[in-house]
Amino acid sequence: MPHGGNHHLLPARQGIAIPLRAGERLRITNTHGGQVVDTWALAAGHPSEHLSMEHSRTSLRKLVPEIGDGLYSNRRRPLLTLVEDTSPGVHDTLIAACDPERYRQLGVAGEHASCAENFRMALAALGVEPGPVPAPLNLFMNIRWREDGGLEFLPSPARAGDYVTLQASTDVTVVLSACPMDLNPINAGGPQDVELEVLPG
Amino acid sequence: MPHGGNHHLLPARQGIAIPLRAGERLRITNTHGGQVVDTWALAAGHPSEHLSMEHSRTSLRKLVPEIGDGLYSNRRRPLLTLVEDTSPGVHDTLIAACDPERYRQLGVAGEHASCAENFRMALAALGVEPGPVPAPLNLFMNIRWREDGGLEFLPSPARAGDYVTLQASTDVTVVLSACPMDLNPINAGGPQDVELEVLPG
Repeated sequence: MPHGGNHHLLPARQGIAIPLRAGERLRITNTHGGQVVDTWALAAGHPSEHLSMEHSRTSLRKLVPEIGDGLYSNRRRPLLTLVEDTSPGVHDTLIAACDPERYRQLGVAGEHASCAENFRMALAALGVEPGPVPAPLNLFMNIRWREDGGLEFLPSPARAGDYVTLQASTDVTVVLSACPMDLNPINAGGPQDVELEVLPG
Repeated sequence: MPHGGNHHLLPARQGIAIPLRAGERLRITNTHGGQVVDTWALAAGHPSEHLSMEHSRTSLRKLVPEIGDGLYSNRRRPLLTLVEDTSPGVHDTLIAACDPERYRQLGVAGEHASCAENFRMALAALGVEPGPVPAPLNLFMNIRWREDGGLEFLPSPARAGDYVTLQASTDVTVVLSACPMDLNPINAGGPQDVELEVLPG
């Protein structure tokens, strides 16, 4: 896939913020397979309104969104719609973005990239003052829930070339992080690059 | 149960904020049974650190905390521990606090009390500037998850007199709301009073 223009490379372990106008679509391609992509959206011009996993679960009555589902903000407005998904449909709304404290607790002594820091840096690069890090939509992340409520962290089943397309319901800034986690099995092949494409409305 | 001193009546549909010192315990009694209690905790003196359901699920690897489990903040510190639970253990970490927009979407034309407004008012009464409303720990709330990820809103199975006791791991402000929801079946007998007791450390 060429880069530049409407194509973006999201390198392994890094983040990016992409403004979308209402109607535009963002295609997120799991280039090498097995990569988790933490995803947020903020309403353009008022970043205190953001995609909220707890409001989305309430409106959808589902743990995981499917094709055709809206993704709701903390003001209960749809900010995005999941319009295409060629992956096995395994995504997560339950788990917090990894952050420096998570890596410290997992035994990392020095620096380690994290989705929370990627969120902050990507927004700062656009001149948006980041607030608290909302719970992300973890695209391609394989967290299995058991009947007894237990959760298991499993490798992403996304195949090379699988993609998800999100359509903006209103003007938004989407933030994505190619999750740098390398201390549990969620990123099946280790952290990998992701490809992004903005498609017209 | 007498009121005053360490005993508090939390009237149906209302909220309250209660400071706890490290080691103190708060017993929340479902006086009449079937009542959902939305519960938050903020670190004393720095309210931007608050109980986080997504961080708690990540640390516990569970959808629902059980006796002995810590409840974690957005900085991955335990703020509370669930030390007693005489109820059937049915609680929820998935669903957003009800708010004015929720009631508007459910068809309410005028005013309606909500857990989100109760959170804000209870903190304002203590002089704490409330930030965004975090996802609550919904004590006694019966949200069933299906194997396919579907969620069902069911009546609370808490019996009259059932209680949960939370112990402060550090100095915190706990905020509780006796959920005013009367448009779905979660509050089994309609909104009801709740009794609270602060027990020494």
